Amino acid sequence: MTLRIGVIGTGAIGRDHARRIQQVLSGGEIVALSDVNRASAEAVRADIAPNAEVFATGEELVDSPKVDAVLVTSWGTTHEQYVLAAIAAGKPCFCEKPLATTAEGARRIVDAEVARGKRLVQVGFMRRYDAGYVALKDAVRTHTGAPIMVHAAHRNPAVPEQYITPMAIHDTLIHEIDVFRWLLDDDYVSARVIFPRKAARSHGKLRDPQIVVLETARGVVIDVEIFVNCHYGYDIQCEVVGEDGIARLPEPMAIQMRLDAKLQNAILTDWKDRFVASYDVELQDFLKAAKLGTASGPTSWDGYMAAVTSDACVQAQERDGEAVAIRTPARPALYA
Amino acid sequence: MTLRIGVIGTGAIGRDHARRIQQVLSGGEIVALSDVNRASAEAVRADIAPNAEVFATGEELVDSPKVDAVLVTSWGTTHEQYVLAAIAAGKPCFCEKPLATTAEGARRIVDAEVARGKRLVQVGFMRRYDAGYVALKDAVRTHTGAPIMVHAAHRNPAVPEQYITPMAIHDTLIHEIDVFRWLLDDDYVSARVIFPRKAARSHGKLRDPQIVVLETARGVVIDVEIFVNCHYGYDIQCEVVGEDGIARLPEPMAIQMRLDAKLQNAILTDWKDRFVASYDVELQDFLKAAKLGTASGPTSWDGYMAAVTSDACVQAQERDGEAVAIRTPARPALYA
Amino acid sequence: MTLRIGVIGTGAIGRDHARRIQQVLSGGEIVALSDVNRASAEAVRADIAPNAEVFATGEELVDSPKVDAVLVTSWGTTHEQYVLAAIAAGKPCFCEKPLATTAEGARRIVDAEVARGKRLVQVGFMRRYDAGYVALKDAVRTHTGAPIMVHAAHRNPAVPEQYITPMAIHDTLIHEIDVFRWLLDDDYVSARVIFPRKAARSHGKLRDPQIVVLETARGVVIDVEIFVNCHYGYDIQCEVVGEDGIARLPEPMAIQMRLDAKLQNAILTDWKDRFVASYDVELQDFLKAAKLGTASGPTSWDGYMAAVTSDACVQAQERDGEAVAIRTPARPALYA
Amino acid sequence: MTLRIGVIGTGAIGRDHARRIQQVLSGGEIVALSDVNRASAEAVRADIAPNAEVFATGEELVDSPKVDAVLVTSWGTTHEQYVLAAIAAGKPCFCEKPLATTAEGARRIVDAEVARGKRLVQVGFMRRYDAGYVALKDAVRTHTGAPIMVHAAHRNPAVPEQYITPMAIHDTLIHEIDVFRWLLDDDYVSARVIFPRKAARSHGKLRDPQIVVLETARGVVIDVEIFVNCHYGYDIQCEVVGEDGIARLPEPMAIQMRLDAKLQNAILTDWKDRFVASYDVELQDFLKAAKLGTASGPTSWDGYMAAVTSDACVQAQERDGEAVAIRTPARPALYA
Repeated sequence: MTLRIGVIGTGAIGRDHARRIQQVLSGGEIVALSDVNRASAEAVRADIAPNAEVFATGEELVDSPKVDAVLVTSWGTTHEQYVLAAIAAGKPCFCEKPLATTAEGARRIVDAEVARGKRLVQVGFMRRYDAGYVALKDAVRTHTGAPIMVHAAHRNPAVPEQYITPMAIHDTLIHEIDVFRWLLDDDYVSARVIFPRKAARSHGKLRDPQIVVLETARGVVIDVEIFVNCHYGYDIQCEVVGEDGIARLPEPMAIQMRLDAKLQNAILTDWKDRFVASYDVELQDFLKAAKLGTASGPTSWDGYMAAVTSDACVQAQERDGEAVAIRTPARPALYA
Repeated sequence: MTLRIGVIGTGAIGRDHARRIQQVLSGGEIVALSDVNRASAEAVRADIAPNAEVFATGEELVDSPKVDAVLVTSWGTTHEQYVLAAIAAGKPCFCEKPLATTAEGARRIVDAEVARGKRLVQVGFMRRYDAGYVALKDAVRTHTGAPIMVHAAHRNPAVPEQYITPMAIHDTLIHEIDVFRWLLDDDYVSARVIFPRKAARSHGKLRDPQIVVLETARGVVIDVEIFVNCHYGYDIQCEVVGEDGIARLPEPMAIQMRLDAKLQNAILTDWKDRFVASYDVELQDFLKAAKLGTASGPTSWDGYMAAVTSDACVQAQERDGEAVAIRTPARPALYA
Repeated sequence: MTLRIGVIGTGAIGRDHARRIQQVLSGGEIVALSDVNRASAEAVRADIAPNAEVFATGEELVDSPKVDAVLVTSWGTTHEQYVLAAIAAGKPCFCEKPLATTAEGARRIVDAEVARGKRLVQVGFMRRYDAGYVALKDAVRTHTGAPIMVHAAHRNPAVPEQYITPMAIHDTLIHEIDVFRWLLDDDYVSARVIFPRKAARSHGKLRDPQIVVLETARGVVIDVEIFVNCHYGYDIQCEVVGEDGIARLPEPMAIQMRLDAKLQNAILTDWKDRFVASYDVELQDFLKAAKLGTASGPTSWDGYMAAVTSDACVQAQERDGEAVAIRTPARPALYA
Repeated sequence: MTLRIGVIGTGAIGRDHARRIQQVLSGGEIVALSDVNRASAEAVRADIAPNAEVFATGEELVDSPKVDAVLVTSWGTTHEQYVLAAIAAGKPCFCEKPLATTAEGARRIVDAEVARGKRLVQVGFMRRYDAGYVALKDAVRTHTGAPIMVHAAHRNPAVPEQYITPMAIHDTLIHEIDVFRWLLDDDYVSARVIFPRKAARSHGKLRDPQIVVLETARGVVIDVEIFVNCHYGYDIQCEVVGEDGIARLPEPMAIQMRLDAKLQNAILTDWKDRFVASYDVELQDFLKAAKLGTASGPTSWDGYMAAVTSDACVQAQERDGEAVAIRTPARPALYA
C-alpha cells in the first residue's frame, strides 16, 4: 500500500519534501499539492509529481478523500490552521517548525489532538533523526552516567539585516531547545541570557553573540552559545558532561588534508548541508507511522513546550542575566 | 513507473537487497524471487515481498516478462551464468562481486555485453558509493594535486580457519583493487606482496598480515596492509599522497568520549557496519539506470580488471616480494 | 655568575624547585634553605643541595649576604611575611601562589614593591609559561580576531573531604583567573556562579560542579566549568571565540592507539603532570631576571587582582547566579 | 662539580650546543673551542662562552687537561679523527651524526672503543630523546603487543639542487634507520627501495619520492615513505602495528583553530623545529654520563649499524625493488 500524501505549501522546503517522497523514500506518493501561489504548486507537479492534483486551498486538500496524510510546509503563520484541519479530518500530519507562531496556538493543537484521542501530528524537529545526535543520546544512556551539564554552540557565518535579537531564539535556538529536551528526557525550569560585547559584524538590531543558560527539572545546566555572525562557518557543537564522563556530538564527515602547512578539515558554511540526511529519516518515520494512521517522532506537545521555552528565552533577553522561570503544564496522557 | 525486479539468490545479501528495494528505496518493487533453496526464496516472499512470484530457476526468472531487471546475489560460482542470461535477455542486471570466479568468466561477460552493444551490468563494488571515498576522490581532484602514492590498510579483527592466504586477495583486497582503480582513474601494471612475520593469531593455512604493493600505469605506488587478525577492530584506512598534499579517508562517525582516563572513539568490529549506507546508494543508482534500460556504476570491465589484478596478486604471494606484471587488454569502447 | 638562591619552605614544591635549580636549569645554585620543620630543610640539603646552609628562620635566610634571591614555597599563610622581607631586603623573590591569603595582604605586597620602586616579585602562576597557553595567546593575537567569549573547563577526577565549595575558587579556579587576565590582557568587572545539580560523587560540604561566568572590562564573557569530581581524569579545556574564528588549547601530548575496538588517547589523571614542563620555564625566567636584580612574569599586581577576583567569585557562590561586581583599583605605574 | 667541555666545530649546530651547555642545561661549562675557521670559534667565545680557550686544532683541544669531555660538531668528514682522539684520551665524546662517513670508519671507532674497554661515545641521534618517540616506545612495550609492521613517512617541503638520490638515505632516512632499531630493539636483515613516478617538483638528479622497505631479524616489515619535495610541510609520521593494536607517533603540539571554513592545525615547515626539544634532553643525558667518565644513549655500535644499513639502502636504490641483504656482525659485549 502506497501512502497518498498532500503537500500544503510548495516553497523550498515543501518542494524538497515532495522530491523526497517521490524520488528517495519508500512507500509514499504525492497526490495533492496546494500553495497560496498556485503557480508554485503547479511547478512542483510539473517537475516532481505529475500525477498530483493541485488544490485551491489547504483545507480542500486536507478534506480530499484521495489524501491519506498531509505535509504542512507553508508559511509559519498558517501552520496552525492546517494542522487543526488535519486533526479534524483525522489524518496524519507532518508540520514543519514552528508548530504555531505562539505558545497559545501550539496549545490549541495539543488540545485538539488530545480531544481526538490519538497522535496525528509530527513536528519537523529533524535533529532528533540526525545520526550524530542519536549516537550521542545512546552514548549518554550507556556511558557517561546521568547528565549534569551540556555545553553547546550554534554558530552561523552571517545573517541578513532583518534577523533581529529575538530571532536568535525563535529561528536558531529553537533546534537546541527541542533536541536537548529529547536528549536529556527532561523539561526546562528556567532560562537566562548573558550578552558578551557585540561582535563587530553584528548589525544594528541584533545583539550577537549571546549565551543562553537553561536549567532543567533534574538540575542539568545547559549553556548554549548562539553566534550568528561567527564568520568562519556553520558549526553545531554539543558536549554532555555526565557523572562518569563526557560525550561529544561528532563533527560532520570531512576529508582530513595536509596542505599548505595546515592539517585541515573543511567546516560547513551552509546550514542546509548540516542535517540534510536527517530529513530523509524523519520523513521515512512519518510515512511508516502514517500508514498505520498515526504519528511518531516529535509531538505537538514537544512543539508546544518549545514555544513556551522560546517565549521565556526571549523574555530573558531583556533581563540582563536574570533567570526567567519556565512553567511546564501537566502533560496529557497522550504524550506520556 | 515502478521497476519490477527479480532477485536470484536469497541468502543474507539477497534478502537484504530485497528489503532495501521494498522498504527503503524509491522506484522499485520485488516481483520475482529464486533460490537453489526454494524455501529461502519463499521466506523472503513471506517476510518482505508478498506479491513476488517464486521461480524454480534463475533462468526462468530472468526470462519472465514480468521482470524488468535482475539482482544476482547467488553463490559466486553461479554469477556468470545468470549475468549472461540477463544480458541475453537484454535486462539490466546488478551482480554482487565477484562478477565471475575467474578472469576468463568475467571476460565472457564483457564480451557478451559488448556484443549486445550497451551497458546492462553493474557490479556490486559498493565502496565507490561510500560518502567517504566519494569525498576523498573529490579532494584528490580539487586539492592534493596528481596522486603519487597511496597508503592503505584493510584490517579485520579475526577470520575463521577456512580463510586461507589467497582469500586475502579474492575476498578482502578485492575492494581496494577496484576502489583504487576508480579513485585514481588508472590501471595496474604490477603487483608484489611482502610478508612480515606471521601474526600470533594467524592460523595454520594463512600468512597474515601481508603488504601488497601495486603500481599503476601512471606510476602511482599503492601499499596496502592486509591484516585479518588485527584483533582490535575492523578498520579501513586510505591516504593519498599527491604533488601538493595529502588527503585521508574519514573515520566512520563515532562519538568522542572522555571516560576512564581515555579520550576515546569506538572502532567498528563488524565489516557489515562499515559501508552499510553505500548499499542503499548503489542500489538506488541501479534503479535509476535500469529504468532507462541500462546500467551505470562499476562495469563488467571493472569486474574483469579486478579479476585479472587479483590473479596477479595471488601469483605474487608466491614470489617473495618480486613484482608480477599485470597486463591490461585493450578497453572496449563501451567502457571508455 | 651563578645566582645564589635561598628556598623558604622545603615541602614538596620547595624541594622540587630546589631540584630544578640544582639539576635542570642553568645559572642558579641553592645556597640556603629554611623550613619550619628544620629536618625537612636538612633532607633537601642532604639530597639535593649539599653546599646549602640551613637557616633557622626565613627572615634570617632573606637577610643573609650569601643569598641573592629567594624562593617562597612555604605554607600559604606565611607567604606575605617572607615576600615583604625580600622586598625590604631588595632581593628578587619568586613566590608560589597565593601571593597572600587575603586581598589586603596582597595589596600590602604591591604597596611595598611600589614603594621600593622596582619589580622584585614573581608569582608562581605557571600556566603563563605553558607552551600550550603561549601558543594559544599567539593564535588569538594573530588569527582569531578580538576575543568575545572564552569557554573553559577545569576538571579533577576527585577531591578529598576537606575540599569545600570556596576552595573551588581559591585553589582551583585561581589558575584560570590569572591565565585569562593574561591571555586576554583585560580586567574583570563581574562574576557569577551557576550551580547545576550536585554530582553524585560530590561530598557533603562541596557543591560540585559549578559554572563560573566572568565578564571583562572589554565585554568578553568567560564561562568556566569547575568539576572536581569528574571521575574520568584531570582535564583543562579552553577555547577562545573571536571575531574571525576560534582557537583551542592543545590537549597534552598522548599516543593515539587503536586497541580493543577503541581509537584512544590517554587522559592525565594527576594535575601534577599537566603543567610540569612550565615550572622549568617559569623558574628559568626568574633566574634570568633575578640576575639583573629584578623580576619578570606574573607580578604582585597580578597576584593581588587574582585575590580580588577570587573574593568576588566566592561571594557569587552565595548569590544564586547573580552577578557580583569586581572593582579594579588604579594600576600603579610599576605594573603598566 | 661542573663538567668542562670542549667543542670541536663551531658552525650552526656546534654554536647551538654551546649555547645549550651555557644557558639552558645544568652541570656543564664550555671551556674550550676549536674550528677550522678560527674566527668562528672566537665568535662563539665572544657571544656565548667568554671563559673558553680557543685551540688551533681539535686534537690539541682533546688533549688539553682542562677539558673533561668533547662535543664533535665539525664537518662530517672529520668526525672519525676527533672521536678516535677522544677515545685515545679516554674522554667522553658526543658526536653529531654521522659517526663517520663510511661504515669502515665507524667500525674503526667501535674497535677503538672496545679496545679501550668502556663506553665513551654518544652519537647524536636525538630522536631517541624526543618525548613522542619515548612515549611511542612505551606504548608498544605496554599496549600494542609485539610489533609486526611499521608504517612511516619522512617528508620535507623542498630540497636544494645539490640534494641527490643517495642523500635521501644518508641525510634523511638515517634518522628512521636508527630510531626504528631502537624502537623495535631489533636489527635489519634486508632493504628494498620502490620508486613511484617522480614528483613534478623533484629536480634532475633526485628520484623523489621513494619507499624504503626494511625487514628486521624478528620479521618486522617497515615501510618508510621519503618525500623531500612534498611541498605542504615537514612531517614525520610513524605507526607501529602490533599483535594487539596500533600506536602512532603524536603530531607536534599545535593550536586547533576554526577559521575560514576550516578546522585547522599548523604543520611545521622547518625540520629544525620538529625535534628541537630533544637536543636539550640528549645533551643533558651526555652531561650526566660524562660526569661519571662514560657515555650513554646511542652508541658507536648504533652509529656503525646505521652506516651499514644506509649503505644497503643506497645499493637497493639501484636494484628496482629487489631486496639487498644486511649483515649484522657479532655485537661486541660492550654494547650488549
